[in-house]
Amino acid sequence: MDRKAAVIAVGNEVVHGFIVDSNSAWLSQSLAELGFDVQFHMAVTDRLPDLTRRLKTALDEGLLIVTTGGIGPTVDDRTREAAAAALGVDLKLDLDDLARLQERYAAMARKFPEGSERQCMRPEGARLVPNAFGTASCFLARHGAGGIAAVPGVPREMMGVWNEELRKAVIEEFGLPNRYHSRELRVFGLPESDLNNRVRDLLESPQAEGAILVDDAVIRLRWRVQAETDDEVERKLRPLLTDARSRLGDLVFAEGDVSLEQATVDALRQAGLHVACAESCTGGLIAHLLTNVAGSSDVLLESAVTYSNEAKHARLGVFKKTLKEHGAVSEQTATEMARGMLKTNGADLAVAVTGIAGPTGGTPDKPVGTVWLAAAMGSDVRTWHLRVPGDRELVKSRTARTALNTLRLAALNGKLPEAISHWVSPP
Amino acid sequence: MDRKAAVIAVGNEVVHGFIVDSNSAWLSQSLAELGFDVQFHMAVTDRLPDLTRRLKTALDEGLLIVTTGGIGPTVDDRTREAAAAALGVDLKLDLDDLARLQERYAAMARKFPEGSERQCMRPEGARLVPNAFGTASCFLARHGAGGIAAVPGVPREMMGVWNEELRKAVIEEFGLPNRYHSRELRVFGLPESDLNNRVRDLLESPQAEGAILVDDAVIRLRWRVQAETDDEVERKLRPLLTDARSRLGDLVFAEGDVSLEQATVDALRQAGLHVACAESCTGGLIAHLLTNVAGSSDVLLESAVTYSNEAKHARLGVFKKTLKEHGAVSEQTATEMARGMLKTNGADLAVAVTGIAGPTGGTPDKPVGTVWLAAAMGSDVRTWHLRVPGDRELVKSRTARTALNTLRLAALNGKLPEAISHWVSPP
Repeated sequence: MDRKAAVIAVGNEVVHGFIVDSNSAWLSQSLAELGFDVQFHMAVTDRLPDLTRRLKTALDEGLLIVTTGGIGPTVDDRTREAAAAALGVDLKLDLDDLARLQERYAAMARKFPEGSERQCMRPEGARLVPNAFGTASCFLARHGAGGIAAVPGVPREMMGVWNEELRKAVIEEFGLPNRYHSRELRVFGLPESDLNNRVRDLLESPQAEGAILVDDAVIRLRWRVQAETDDEVERKLRPLLTDARSRLGDLVFAEGDVSLEQATVDALRQAGLHVACAESCTGGLIAHLLTNVAGSSDVLLESAVTYSNEAKHARLGVFKKTLKEHGAVSEQTATEMARGMLKTNGADLAVAVTGIAGPTGGTPDKPVGTVWLAAAMGSDVRTWHLRVPGDRELVKSRTARTALNTLRLAALNGKLPEAISHWVSPP
Repeated sequence: MDRKAAVIAVGNEVVHGFIVDSNSAWLSQSLAELGFDVQFHMAVTDRLPDLTRRLKTALDEGLLIVTTGGIGPTVDDRTREAAAAALGVDLKLDLDDLARLQERYAAMARKFPEGSERQCMRPEGARLVPNAFGTASCFLARHGAGGIAAVPGVPREMMGVWNEELRKAVIEEFGLPNRYHSRELRVFGLPESDLNNRVRDLLESPQAEGAILVDDAVIRLRWRVQAETDDEVERKLRPLLTDARSRLGDLVFAEGDVSLEQATVDALRQAGLHVACAESCTGGLIAHLLTNVAGSSDVLLESAVTYSNEAKHARLGVFKKTLKEHGAVSEQTATEMARGMLKTNGADLAVAVTGIAGPTGGTPDKPVGTVWLAAAMGSDVRTWHLRVPGDRELVKSRTARTALNTLRLAALNGKLPEAISHWVSPP
């Protein structure tokens, strides 16, 4: 069974970049759940010949094309005409559907807008897909192995029609075969290329389609299979996940859709630890990430964003002598920040960062991206020298995530960790 | 002059819907600024034959194709091979570029990862487009009226390479015709619908194409014209901008690509003011936004992210009695936080926020989104009661931006402002 699909987003505003098309991603996941292998997305203008040609080409490839947009009442809504032309049939007005729409306007005590009857037209032979979320009726036209399904462009309407009506209609037309399922591990602390080398054979497994997705600091290691039941998914994917986990150890911070900050808060809560942060170059980002997690007040007491030297001294007790002799970006300052933070409240664990985020402030000895990170737990203190590549925002973001990972590993192991990320510079 | 372009996003993760492709929208706007008429976007898998065929078809249509993604070091990065095949040329390793990449790893004291040399390959005859934002070199290959330009998939890297290098290279290859130019005002503090009503006639001016773009809190008011010279742009757009500014006053915080945090830091610097923040529900976000601005250390002394009641008392001197009698989310607590912050350092101006970001913690009296904001300047203190709609992240983000705007207006006017945003609840 080889069912293929494509998504076509219709509208100048998408092609010209004034709207980011999130519909295609959503529809692709929904199509995969029904067992369709999505071949491509496309965003096309509402020029009729162009749209017709693209639809025709995709129909000839045997695809089920889901179009989003271009079915409203205005003159630049041309998906209906293009679909009929591509299918080689006439466009027909559904009089029953029109009566329903007129009643709807009457019930709202509103005049029926001129031209709105266009929304009740569809290619001959296509089935009506009712739209309870808006005024434009949708349709599904079968054609060979594929066909055309037309839904609105407004995301909320599109999702509503899919979930309430179109999903059912597609299953009735095409049946419900083996569907695609995926599982992923989330990884932090090594470069993409190293990860690739360590799990290359697992990514290329004939069992499943593997992929690596990178987001600055966090890496997603994902496998996708076709399967009928959850048991079958587990049987096919669990060995790969288990093998990858055993190779990567603590580098894996979660399975599934879990952020590093969520995993950090979870680990701290499970260990019953309260934490505090002392931030200079991250400027509050560590606390911001932690507090994005609902319930983070269970584990986070406070963060002192001590941007000036005076604040490092006044809030955290960093010695003026230390700041003068070693500078604000130094192992000594970071150590005193972490110790000072732990001393001034009831936290079990503190992390401190001080560094040069750039673009200015770098020196040959301490270039932009130089960061000292210190963690204190009870009487234990440990420091790391980071060399973080990237611009100001990247240095902040990578440093903050390294700090989160330090907290996470300390919570998991009950003691301060050794390796916290690949941005640690070898001594 | 008829220059046409298309954007092709490469990667299974995009086609399967695991990533929403925002690159294509951004690139389309950037291509329009260089006078290209974008014909379509497409997202294709990293299957080599498929990718090659799509590129070939678009080349045959005379398009400049910008590809995003698929140029990294891993086995599923196949844009380079596909581009060479579509162009009908060999793929060549650039040894100078390789030496540069190896030096870069050496400078970071990191081992050169196996397979990374792939990132220095490009189709024969293509020009190198350096990438200062990552390890994958980019390229531009001319082919008939169009060609292929390859940039990374990571948005930040893609934008960096475009702005720093590719834009120049495209102008060198294709020349610079009558371009679309736009000017925009950035606005904060009123709802989109109100803004629309106040400037509707200006948006519908026959002089230029007007648009309102919304980003949660900040609104962009933009006009676009086709023009040959900067003088012509000014002549066409300045009257509209001036009129809009005079209607909107302080609601306009900048002209052009300036963030609210940048405008805030600029205003504070110009007024010679030093600020400090006391954050509860924003959890460090106010400081994070301010410190995203290079040079913010000129104006920001510190932020105390006092998440627990203990920290509010210990760091800011909020009375235990106040916390007990009025609660952490109250006018009294916010006032004592702002006053306490000003008392404990040499700041001229302090802002404090305490609220309920959700999803839990709301009560009938103080539902999720209830926020008290206080500002202190010298001996003056003012408070505002906000009712901020949205989920946890939106409440944080809208509250933080309201706090920034408070600082900005205080710096502009030399005194605490009255109106700070439309989320202030009428008494």
